[in-house]
Amino acid sequence: MSGSERNIALVLEYDGTGYGGWQVQPNAPSIQAEVESALETLLKSRVRVTASGRTDAGVHALGQVVHFRTRGRIPLKGLFHGLNSLLPPAVAVRRVHEMPPEFDARRSAREKTYRYRIHRAAAPSAFARPFSWRLTGPLDLTAMAEAGRRLVGTHDFAAFRAAGCGAVTTVRTVTAVDLIRRGEFLEIEVTGNGFLRHMVRIMVGTLVEVGRGRMTVGDVADLLSRPDREGAGPTAPARGLVLVAVRYSTSPLGSFP
Amino acid sequence: MSGSERNIALVLEYDGTGYGGWQVQPNAPSIQAEVESALETLLKSRVRVTASGRTDAGVHALGQVVHFRTRGRIPLKGLFHGLNSLLPPAVAVRRVHEMPPEFDARRSAREKTYRYRIHRAAAPSAFARPFSWRLTGPLDLTAMAEAGRRLVGTHDFAAFRAAGCGAVTTVRTVTAVDLIRRGEFLEIEVTGNGFLRHMVRIMVGTLVEVGRGRMTVGDVADLLSRPDREGAGPTAPARGLVLVAVRYSTSPLGSFP
Repeated sequence: MSGSERNIALVLEYDGTGYGGWQVQPNAPSIQAEVESALETLLKSRVRVTASGRTDAGVHALGQVVHFRTRGRIPLKGLFHGLNSLLPPAVAVRRVHEMPPEFDARRSAREKTYRYRIHRAAAPSAFARPFSWRLTGPLDLTAMAEAGRRLVGTHDFAAFRAAGCGAVTTVRTVTAVDLIRRGEFLEIEVTGNGFLRHMVRIMVGTLVEVGRGRMTVGDVADLLSRPDREGAGPTAPARGLVLVAVRYSTSPLGSFP
Repeated sequence: MSGSERNIALVLEYDGTGYGGWQVQPNAPSIQAEVESALETLLKSRVRVTASGRTDAGVHALGQVVHFRTRGRIPLKGLFHGLNSLLPPAVAVRRVHEMPPEFDARRSAREKTYRYRIHRAAAPSAFARPFSWRLTGPLDLTAMAEAGRRLVGTHDFAAFRAAGCGAVTTVRTVTAVDLIRRGEFLEIEVTGNGFLRHMVRIMVGTLVEVGRGRMTVGDVADLLSRPDREGAGPTAPARGLVLVAVRYSTSPLGSFP
């Protein structure tokens, strides 16, 4: 790596509704393609961006972190304003950081927090719908919270991954599963050192089965010793999920704003 | 009116982003056309819907009220679920009421509350953008609140109406102008017995001029004796405005949910 190459991290917020997910793909628009296209226009060279991890089609982000390397000398402020003027309204750069050369948005990530929103309302809401899963009928929140606590810790989450998940090891550490009531919404916040494909959405689908009395807290604990997807609840819809934050131990060399 | 004709009111929530406004119009989709089309499918007859008032292109609603008359015998529950399954995701029926024959969503309206959201943030937000006006730089909130209080009362609001506004009288009674800080947002809530075209958006544009130090509280008070649009602040963007509620003194005969 040349001494003049800079390592830039972006904190991105996006509404995933109209997108096929983070990753560039042939038949759907992707957030990655939007960001790389805006960078190419701004920096006048092809740039490849790496995210902390993929988000699936329809999943949102408040704090996705990505990095890229460039020899461009554009100041962080110019990068921030330039990208925000080029990106479509559904994608926003919240912050720009200059990082040390060794920083990698994916490999350096220590912890991620996802939030899942359940809309508990008799009537649908035009504003809530793209960002939540609406459920009617009673939910046993005490049982759901207890089942959530059973998922905290270092476990084999093989039962909580999508059929196509290619992860070599299925052991992950979940540090928190919190249920928060906020008006008409029930939010489930999950923090961990890494997540298998669809893991949070299957956790949410499983907790909802517990809330509806179709599974017990013991059933959930038993899933942690199962080698396959059988037995866990359904995968909750993508639109309720948002990647809230990714945490690193690397300090930035500079930031804007 | 036949004794078998029912008078139905709907409380509607809508995301006005992709619409040319409430009213049916030749060259843009309208909320009214969505509602009338869903009703026509459900009731198998042409239905004309009357709203409490028009909302402009890009303006949203949490509690728009509309009414229509029908000889259809469909129960309120069936109407609620049927309409919500037929309407696009941007339009939702929050509640259905059976009203006495004399109820008229427009003529019976006693008071309306609008909320305008200003997003005070250095960075744009993908989620906030469709529903707010982003402003950077300082705002003198004390002066804005004081100027807001001067607008409360029965006044001639001729200076606060759009050029094309056809209202015969420009005297209206504003009962409250409240500024509320909510995290990154400043909300301006305006309640009154009626509003001229663009009146709330011009009030907001004017209060922002005061917040920026470009107009004084006295300038705002002086506008209430002006016969024309000259002198008031700019019209704030439509996307920050939401019709929160319409109040009536008529009691419903039945409601769902």
